[in-house]
Amino acid sequence: MAPLILITGGSRSGKSAFAQHLAEEQGGSRLFIATSQPADPEMAERVRCHQKEREGRNWQTVEEPLAPAQVLAGCEPGTTVLLDCLTLWVSNVMHDHELSKKNMDDDVISLLAGKLAQAAREFSGSVFMVTNEVGLGIVPDNPLARRYRDLVGRCNQVIAAEADHVYLVSCGIPLSLK
Amino acid sequence: MAPLILITGGSRSGKSAFAQHLAEEQGGSRLFIATSQPADPEMAERVRCHQKEREGRNWQTVEEPLAPAQVLAGCEPGTTVLLDCLTLWVSNVMHDHELSKKNMDDDVISLLAGKLAQAAREFSGSVFMVTNEVGLGIVPDNPLARRYRDLVGRCNQVIAAEADHVYLVSCGIPLSLK
Amino acid sequence: MAPLILITGGSRSGKSAFAQHLAEEQGGSRLFIATSQPADPEMAERVRCHQKEREGRNWQTVEEPLAPAQVLAGCEPGTTVLLDCLTLWVSNVMHDHELSKKNMDDDVISLLAGKLAQAAREFSGSVFMVTNEVGLGIVPDNPLARRYRDLVGRCNQVIAAEADHVYLVSCGIPLSLK
Repeated sequence: MAPLILITGGSRSGKSAFAQHLAEEQGGSRLFIATSQPADPEMAERVRCHQKEREGRNWQTVEEPLAPAQVLAGCEPGTTVLLDCLTLWVSNVMHDHELSKKNMDDDVISLLAGKLAQAAREFSGSVFMVTNEVGLGIVPDNPLARRYRDLVGRCNQVIAAEADHVYLVSCGIPLSLK
Repeated sequence: MAPLILITGGSRSGKSAFAQHLAEEQGGSRLFIATSQPADPEMAERVRCHQKEREGRNWQTVEEPLAPAQVLAGCEPGTTVLLDCLTLWVSNVMHDHELSKKNMDDDVISLLAGKLAQAAREFSGSVFMVTNEVGLGIVPDNPLARRYRDLVGRCNQVIAAEADHVYLVSCGIPLSLK
Repeated sequence: MAPLILITGGSRSGKSAFAQHLAEEQGGSRLFIATSQPADPEMAERVRCHQKEREGRNWQTVEEPLAPAQVLAGCEPGTTVLLDCLTLWVSNVMHDHELSKKNMDDDVISLLAGKLAQAAREFSGSVFMVTNEVGLGIVPDNPLARRYRDLVGRCNQVIAAEADHVYLVSCGIPLSLK
């Protein structure tokens, strides 16, 4: 069983670059699972930036907004996988439930995150997951934003509990939590 | 003199669960001081969740939005006390000053937090206090929110200065600060 | 070459007091570079508070919202310098570009922060810089706020990469990152 590593941090904390750096220390083929759906120019630019940083470094990219566990299940054995990021995945899951008018109780994300962690644990290559800390500011006025930060917090706890290593990145510097 | 322990973290970081876990490592009777006033269904649901996690574990619960130091002063010697959370207490104190049209200068919360820490230090049982980090986002537009995060920051500093141990919880993982 | 030390943390985390404490452990003359422009009474009050804490402790104060690197370059050799804070400097630089209708692409702040770090590295006295973590809350609705937190994150990474020591302050307690 290969390791599962969770990297968290604030926006522009250097967490993605650190995760990529760790992943590139692994040999073999590399798969980047992008959970983002570049819906506007700002996001598209951000995605382009991250893509540029992976160019020429042997990365294959798969865009999978909703079902990263299924990508892992179908992935070539021994591949090093970098999933960036869990926060957008949570946002996509929320949006998908809303669109299909499915009820989304508090345990849905814990269940899905548990399955994702399980898929990572069963996979034969190292899996790196990037997430964000979003709960260290003032309580948002917006109920949807409050719900989102709750679900991200739950997701992070579930993944971290299964992870072999957890890092918190601040100012580009990783702090080992586990 | 029994220890005072402060547990901080973001929303849904697992700080309350970690604090409860630490408190339950202590023998004897246990008192939970809830500072929340469940004014709306969302908050009521959150309170119900936390209550459920304490069921069957020998916890007595007292709701005290404004005067936790007085609860501590009247508490049975040797009881393990868990106060959750300081941020809601600060919010209640602000609201109370506003309601009674009392002026609340910057030192009020430092003074009250100092008295609370003192009451904890003088108490014969272990005291665990849960708080939030609320100052790690963008400066809020709302002046009241800015004031609130200032007061929470001051309160946390005063309690932490007196505490024997301080933990920062992220992704459910405690990081020892002191 | 004297050391460069970066101190980060949330609002009211005690980061400025910790930075001042570290700086005052150095002998010799002391220069405080204030990047703030007290444009409103709230900010003016905050500045007065910080000034009061430096009174009688041998500090000279220079207000320099835009060009702290030039202040460093012209500073008397061996002086201990405390720059507080980088976040306001980033905000001032953004505002200045806006006023003069200069385009400000993403690399401007990295470039300026690099020059500031370089000036600090070349200076003969210890340089302490205070900054804020602003990226650990919910993504702000406001595009300017999103841009600001991106630029602060970049600035912090550039300075931290050059710094000899980096501290994250929470509840008044410094955590050594580097």
